[in-house]
Amino acid sequence: MIKRLAGTTPTRSRAVIHGGIVYAVATAPTKTPSLYEQTRDALAAIDRTLAEAGSNKSRILRATVYITDMAQKGEMNRAWDEWVDPANPPQRACIGVALEDKDLVEILITAAV
Amino acid sequence: MIKRLAGTTPTRSRAVIHGGIVYAVATAPTKTPSLYEQTRDALAAIDRTLAEAGSNKSRILRATVYITDMAQKGEMNRAWDEWVDPANPPQRACIGVALEDKDLVEILITAAV
Amino acid sequence: MIKRLAGTTPTRSRAVIHGGIVYAVATAPTKTPSLYEQTRDALAAIDRTLAEAGSNKSRILRATVYITDMAQKGEMNRAWDEWVDPANPPQRACIGVALEDKDLVEILITAAV
Repeated sequence: MIKRLAGTTPTRSRAVIHGGIVYAVATAPTKTPSLYEQTRDALAAIDRTLAEAGSNKSRILRATVYITDMAQKGEMNRAWDEWVDPANPPQRACIGVALEDKDLVEILITAAV
Repeated sequence: MIKRLAGTTPTRSRAVIHGGIVYAVATAPTKTPSLYEQTRDALAAIDRTLAEAGSNKSRILRATVYITDMAQKGEMNRAWDEWVDPANPPQRACIGVALEDKDLVEILITAAV
Repeated sequence: MIKRLAGTTPTRSRAVIHGGIVYAVATAPTKTPSLYEQTRDALAAIDRTLAEAGSNKSRILRATVYITDMAQKGEMNRAWDEWVDPANPPQRACIGVALEDKDLVEILITAAV
């Protein structure tokens, strides 16, 4: 069985759950010019999505963090370090890319339910 | 058991199937200068690979779409929206990156068999 | 059960094992200016991590290779082709992105245990 959580448009899902794994994505709901704030807000969105999927941040397996300005990676790290469950840190990669409009960060999560 | 579908070179696979999951990748077979056309053609290649793996687009869990020009994301979206199974939308992320030669788009798919 | 292998900082893991799958990441331990050398060294780090997780390169399902200079992709390919198990090639994608400091390559691996 495949369960899907609705995204911002009908042609994509915010999260998909299958075989005990949830695949989730988030950006910041509000596009502030601060990478710290956008990361904090995107991680809060991840928390809400994981809860809806029956999981939580202690069960994250992999996080891929896309940011638009690698020079500001420290700001992303600050939000990450405040948020992460230090007893259960995910495998994480941080990659500098282009994102849409005013998005400064986009986060892909693979977690166990 | 791990099953592998041959790719364009002997040192990589086009798709790998294991544990009820297929991991697949596609670019457009023909490198037209249109992102819409390359996306449409890459998605058709994904359809063929999923069929060969015993899956189909209604069973896609995650799609990561890499494009070389974020300003043209609308062209990718147009091909995506025409193609996607609206009853079963995947979790999707779209990222602006550099690709090889004349590739304008590359698509990574994780699907249930 | 989720098993985690410690990374370079306490807020992330080098690898996470769950449900018969290992999620791993590596960069080159030494930041030489050669993409060939960094790729070779990152792949050797992947070998060590997979061994620690009870897996090996013949069981890799997906590899995502991030490099900072797509014009040098041939150097990455050279190290890849020397390293890969030709009887068991992974599904692979290579993407041009920005990485931190002197990193020229970062490799994400999904493998069966």
